Amino acid sequence: MSSETDFLDWVRTQQYFLDYVRVAVGDDLAVLKWPAQDLLLVGVDQVLDGVHFDSRVHSPRLIGRKVMNRNFSDCAAMGCLPAAALTSVALPRGAGIDYAKELYLGLRDVADRWVCGIIGGDTASWDQKLALSVTVLGRSEGVEPITRSGAKVGDGIYVTGPLGGSIVGRHMTFEPRVKWGRELAESRTVNSMIDVSDGLSRDLPRICAASGVGAVIDAARIPLHPDAVELSKRDGKSPLMHALHDGEDHELLFTSSADWSARWPRIGTAISDPGVWIVESGSRRRLEARGWDHSL
Amino acid sequence: MSSETDFLDWVRTQQYFLDYVRVAVGDDLAVLKWPAQDLLLVGVDQVLDGVHFDSRVHSPRLIGRKVMNRNFSDCAAMGCLPAAALTSVALPRGAGIDYAKELYLGLRDVADRWVCGIIGGDTASWDQKLALSVTVLGRSEGVEPITRSGAKVGDGIYVTGPLGGSIVGRHMTFEPRVKWGRELAESRTVNSMIDVSDGLSRDLPRICAASGVGAVIDAARIPLHPDAVELSKRDGKSPLMHALHDGEDHELLFTSSADWSARWPRIGTAISDPGVWIVESGSRRRLEARGWDHSL
Repeated sequence: MSSETDFLDWVRTQQYFLDYVRVAVGDDLAVLKWPAQDLLLVGVDQVLDGVHFDSRVHSPRLIGRKVMNRNFSDCAAMGCLPAAALTSVALPRGAGIDYAKELYLGLRDVADRWVCGIIGGDTASWDQKLALSVTVLGRSEGVEPITRSGAKVGDGIYVTGPLGGSIVGRHMTFEPRVKWGRELAESRTVNSMIDVSDGLSRDLPRICAASGVGAVIDAARIPLHPDAVELSKRDGKSPLMHALHDGEDHELLFTSSADWSARWPRIGTAISDPGVWIVESGSRRRLEARGWDHSL
Repeated sequence: MSSETDFLDWVRTQQYFLDYVRVAVGDDLAVLKWPAQDLLLVGVDQVLDGVHFDSRVHSPRLIGRKVMNRNFSDCAAMGCLPAAALTSVALPRGAGIDYAKELYLGLRDVADRWVCGIIGGDTASWDQKLALSVTVLGRSEGVEPITRSGAKVGDGIYVTGPLGGSIVGRHMTFEPRVKWGRELAESRTVNSMIDVSDGLSRDLPRICAASGVGAVIDAARIPLHPDAVELSKRDGKSPLMHALHDGEDHELLFTSSADWSARWPRIGTAISDPGVWIVESGSRRRLEARGWDHSL
């Protein structure tokens, strides 16, 4: 039977040179010389079997990609560039070294597109299901990171793509909007940004709460993903309900003083009154937060 | 029932100011201005229910402390100072917000001793057991990090405390040797260092392999922990076997050109012949690596 040590020996053969990494995988900690002019952005995001994926259906390669894409989507939402990642893997006992390699290669598929080194990790096995966590380090490289807290009254509210129904399949295969996040940050007209991971009805209030503003959105302008329409046929909920409340869209939701409507739909406006409102068929009601929230 | 959001609201009330943290918990990523003169050290280490602790026996506070102490022990082994941490928690469904808070407070008990901010995290729940992972960021602050790869032929091999039998209890309560790690790094006489996490018989060969040296150790000089003696009475294995092969001691194992023997036992010498040897009762044999290794 293969062991953690065999796996680590293999991982070491997969490393490549990065100028800011002095010591990578294989010591107690990795050692980096962070570029002096760059801010360091850092966050962690995990995926769990039975919650974020189903190991009976999804390949380890796809699972590895998903968790890395989730982290890169956080980079996108701040306007930074992924620079390095670390991973922590709790493998079901007996999964085998090939399964572990496929997970790693899934991480690498995504990481390699942005020259992001995987510079550390921890691998263990247990008698439970797969848990996979990634820490991402991002660099600001010339932009001021966009937080959730800078929205200003009068800002337009935009979303970079259609929402809803990701569970149909694309929650495993979405594209993190790193390039668009950079572009938006470089424009210096974007005041706040988040990626839609827990559903619009949960993520928009986060911007509002952090920024001390309210928001009103127009139901007719919310872009509906074909998956939301598809899911609507199956479960009878409206496509709009899916677009508002489903999670894992990983589109960027941002507010800006500039007009981006030639490119992406403007779905609403930041207002001074607190609260998040939706206008539908001429009437305005409070937008209830129903998106994803783990009960503890 | 409480939710992840309620927990995060509480976590935010627990934050304190750190001069290098611009944005802490509550955005997509934390934002840090890393001190330009400092190297950035980073690593990840997890604990799993049934492997590294037993949630039926160990309190969440103790579990939180353990995982943070493991990470700090990695900092100690590099001679760096803990600066910031992020955590990823997979909670058994229904564990409750108070359990999550106790885990967090366990992390904080340890972090606060070194003014190490907990600047990010991910919390989710599932129908499996508790998995808890921590990423630690360390800063070099005036020292060159000590790696595993600098051991020189002729170096003395030292260990900072008695080994073996940690499973009796101290694997949950050990003290990471951050202060000693700093002192050793500042001395500029230490050529390689690691913390004994998987057992001397597994961790010493790691230094040898990384450094391209061999080692010979003297069985009579290996400091035996009272727990190794205690365990020996129970299972009939010798205390030496426990000291060589048990894991989770978290003492520092280092090689140095200076004489540290007035303070810590010198257990052996780095040699040019490859391989790790132990001398016992006048005869020399290969030291077999039996310490902890996860099978996959």
